[in-house]
Order: sequence, then C-alpha cells, then structure tokens
Amino acid sequence: MATLKVPSTVPPPSEDCEQLQKAFAGWGTNEALIIQILAHRNGAQRKKIQETYYEAYGEDLLKDLDSELSSDFQRAVMLWTLEPAERDAYLVNEATKKLTASNWVLMEIACSRSSDHLFCVRKTYHAKYKKSIEEDVAHHTSGDFRRLLVPLVSAFRYEGDEVNMSLAKSEAKIFNQKINDKAYNDDELIRILTTRSKAQLNATLNQYNDQFGKAITKDLKADPKDEYLKLLRSAIKCLTIPEKYYEKVLRLAINKLGTDEWALTRVIITRAEVDLKRIAEEYLRRNSVPLDKAIAGDTSGDYERMLLALMGHDDA
Amino acid sequence: MATLKVPSTVPPPSEDCEQLQKAFAGWGTNEALIIQILAHRNGAQRKKIQETYYEAYGEDLLKDLDSELSSDFQRAVMLWTLEPAERDAYLVNEATKKLTASNWVLMEIACSRSSDHLFCVRKTYHAKYKKSIEEDVAHHTSGDFRRLLVPLVSAFRYEGDEVNMSLAKSEAKIFNQKINDKAYNDDELIRILTTRSKAQLNATLNQYNDQFGKAITKDLKADPKDEYLKLLRSAIKCLTIPEKYYEKVLRLAINKLGTDEWALTRVIITRAEVDLKRIAEEYLRRNSVPLDKAIAGDTSGDYERMLLALMGHDDA
Repeated sequence: MATLKVPSTVPPPSEDCEQLQKAFAGWGTNEALIIQILAHRNGAQRKKIQETYYEAYGEDLLKDLDSELSSDFQRAVMLWTLEPAERDAYLVNEATKKLTASNWVLMEIACSRSSDHLFCVRKTYHAKYKKSIEEDVAHHTSGDFRRLLVPLVSAFRYEGDEVNMSLAKSEAKIFNQKINDKAYNDDELIRILTTRSKAQLNATLNQYNDQFGKAITKDLKADPKDEYLKLLRSAIKCLTIPEKYYEKVLRLAINKLGTDEWALTRVIITRAEVDLKRIAEEYLRRNSVPLDKAIAGDTSGDYERMLLALMGHDDA
Repeated sequence: MATLKVPSTVPPPSEDCEQLQKAFAGWGTNEALIIQILAHRNGAQRKKIQETYYEAYGEDLLKDLDSELSSDFQRAVMLWTLEPAERDAYLVNEATKKLTASNWVLMEIACSRSSDHLFCVRKTYHAKYKKSIEEDVAHHTSGDFRRLLVPLVSAFRYEGDEVNMSLAKSEAKIFNQKINDKAYNDDELIRILTTRSKAQLNATLNQYNDQFGKAITKDLKADPKDEYLKLLRSAIKCLTIPEKYYEKVLRLAINKLGTDEWALTRVIITRAEVDLKRIAEEYLRRNSVPLDKAIAGDTSGDYERMLLALMGHDDA
C-alpha cells in the first residue's frame, strides 16, 4: 500500500549519480531533476545511489543535497534519501533535543514500526550517536511521559497473530478499572500497553468495547486538554489502527493556521514506501478531500512537487 | 577467560553422534562418554552435533538426553547442550513461571550479557514462546521489582568505551541524593541504572566513591534483609564487576546447607565459555579454596564430573 512509483526500467545507479551531479552543477540547482530521480527510487535503490555517488565523486550525497537545497524542500529530500532505520534514528535523536523535542515523534516511531525495524533503529542509534535510544528518551523526559515512552521505545513486541482471549478479557477489565479510578499512569495499564503484541492488544480493546459499550479512546477523554492523555490515546491508535492515527496527524498539520510542515513532511516521507495509500484513503473518507489535493492547496514550489511525487504523481 | 577445554583435533560431528548413540544404547547409559564428548565441544561444535544427530537419526538430541539422563546431571548436560541464546531464553522463561520464579535469574541475564546477545535472547524467546520477554517479566512481577526488571530486560545498552565525565559527576550526585532520601525505587535512580552504558555507569560509581567516600553498594545496605535492595545491589555488581557477582552466587550456592544445585549449574554452564576462569580466580581470592575443589567437595558422581570437565579438568 505504498504510493511510491518506481519506473519499470530504472537507470543504473551510476547514471542516476551523473544526473544528480548535473542537477547540482553551475549556478542554481535543477530541483526538478533531483525529484525526478530520488522521488522515484525505492530504499534499496537510494542506498545504492548514495554508495555509488561516494565511490564516483568521493562526496557524501547527503552533504551535497544539504548545501544545494533549502528549507522544507531540503528537509524532505534529505529525510527521504536516508535509509528508513537511519532516518528514524535521526528523527528520534531530534525529538530528544531541547529545541526540537517531541514526545509525539517518539511515540509514533515506537508504536508504528515493526519490532525488527524498531530494533534496527536502536542499533543504528548506537552507531550514530554513541548512546542508546532509551538512554536519551529517559534522560529527556520525566514523570508520566517517561513512564510511558521509555518502555514504548524499548519494546520488542511479539508479532505473531495468536491471541489469548481470556487474557484479553481480564486485561480489558484492568483497563476499565484503572480508567474508572482515573489512574491513567497506572503500572498495570502501562504494562499492558507497552508489552503486549499488537494482535493481543487489539483483542483486548475489542473486549473493552464489548464489555463496556464504548471505545477505550473515548473513555480516555476525561480531560481533552491533558497532554499525557492525548499521547496515551494516540499511542493506542497508532498501535492498533495506524492509518487513522496518521490521517489525524495529516489533518491537523494541513488544517493548522500556517501548515505544520514538519509533521506533513514526516508522515509523507516515512509512509510513502509503507502504507501511504491506505492513509490517503482514510484521509479522503474523513475529510471528503483527496490528500494530494489538500497537500497541493497547502504547499508550493519544489516542496509541493516532492511530496506529490512521493504520493505517486507521475508528472511531478 | 573461558575454562572450556576443546581437544586440539576434534572428531567430525558424525563421529561424535555415533559415539553419543553408543552411549545411549542398550541397558544403562555411558555417562562418562557423554561428558567426554559434549563437555569438550564449544557452542558452534555442539550446534553442529545437534544438527548432524537429527539428520542421521531423525531424533532430537535434547530429547534423547532428556530420556537417558536424570536429576542434576541431566539438567547440566541439557542446559549445556542448548545454544547460549536458546539457553538464556529457557532460563528466563523458567524464571517467570510460578514454581521456578526468580527475579535473580532475570536480573543476572539482563545485566551480565552483551547487548547483542540479550537482543538475540529476546528474538529467540519470540520464536520459542510466542511472547516477548518483557511481556512475561512485566506480567509476573509487580511493584519495585517490576520497575527495575522490565527496563533491565528491555535495555539495549550502548557498548562503547566513551565516558561523559560531567554526566558521571551529576548522576553520582543523583544516586547519593536518592539514597539519602531512602528513595531506592526512584525513577531517576532506576533510569540511570537501566539505560546508561556499562562504561558510563562505572564512571558514575567511581565518582560516587570519590565524592562520597563510600561504595554505593555499601550505602544501599540500609536494611540488609530487604529483598529489593539486595536485588538492586546485585544488579549494580553484575553490571560493573560481574566476576564478583558470580563469585558470590557460587559461594552462597556451595556454602548453603544442602548446596543450591540450580545456581551452581547455572553459573558453571553459562560462564564456562565466557569468563569462568576469571570467576574462579575471584573465588580463590575470596574463599582461599580453589573453586574446583569446593565443587568437588559439594557434589558427586556424573554431576560432579560434568561440572569439573567444564572447569577444564582433563581427566573428567
């Protein structure tokens, strides 16, 4: 359900590299050419291009992109060019730094990636930042946020489909009891959310619905402005119905006065090779506007062309 | 610093398998022959033997060992035959079950293994038990024990040597402050212990010594009978001076009225290929008795011969 479009015959990496060098050459930069190449290559192909580029010109493609491009377009192209695990490690690191701190990004990466991918991000983080993710997350958060986020980023969830129904029933009861007591940061509630497999969690939430006649996310809206409760609800959504979680991130980013380009870029870049088609369907269903139209209406120039290319537009 | 002795020329696995079949054949079992083979093969060789055994006889070597052997000797041979990651997954699973529950085993495996190995154990656990380790540990523990153990088993610590001295100083102060407040289960104290690299933790503990004139483990002895404090002290030792931690486990196991064979077996089996030589040196230094002598005095028969063979005795 990716939106990325790769041409049926892809030029060899050496040719892509030559074209990129041409795009950088002389006065000004040929942004259209950069989009035409990079926005239509998959992860493995982009990696090969980076390697070939280094072998051929002795330069780091990312550094060249950094010096040739600017603003939102630059950020989009650079994040896109990074390998998925490297990109996530970069986003996590950014999210633990003061000026760019974001509990949302940490939660999103922890909850929406596969267990193996998340581990790969942790390994990449060691190599790149000489620290562990949990170390930085624990250091840069506190209180309830830390209690939720550290086990989320440290989890290596089982990914099989098996579901234990009696466990789902009893843990749905625990959820309900803790919510009734307004014990939203309770150990048991956090334990269940941060350790159970997604299939098991899903069964537990279904049980919650069946037993208590309401979605758990509804019951977690006691105080709609409470930031911790918001994060908790989003984590639940992100773990079980990621396309709905992402639709909402996009909706808020686009509807915001002035557009939240960081969120928009992050979702399009990180999901284009994964499930952006599914997210776009959800967006259309919820907003009665196609996602690409909404993006085109809210962005412009090379940045707009880059995002639309990743959405699968051929003429980008 | 392993004690395991492998002969300079090792027979091909097919020959080892034939010999094992002979050891199982007829009335009675030739335990000496089993020891002679398995206790003198390294992890890779034992794995090959298991594979070859299955190919040649269509039987699982572990099942055959299970039906041929008994009691402590059986447990030792079977644990030894398992691959290290499989063995640790088995031990962790056992430690989360009611009758064999042990916070100590969980802590020991989480704190003494390398980050990559611990992750490998988590992966093996998925495949074998269709659950995650943190899920089982969180489910089977509670209160302070859970707060400490879940992040310990979920950690993927950075393993570089780099040390941030100003961080070490400030975190030593945090330790001291929490200990003065008797806040042994404090979030910050647990955060530092469960996320920092072993090199960084070591620097922090040295700072603690320098700044406050006492080892942190001494200051954590407020109530020597408190089980949580004991576990906390042991975790600190196990993370920074594992040979001393293991020496104490062995000392207590051997000095106990009736010998704690489970602990004895676990330490010898899991460290024989790692650092048992170093642990034995520490044992001699602390007890003025060589470890092999102490083991020989406290065990007997095939079980004794198996342990001594793993300690490097040729004539076992």
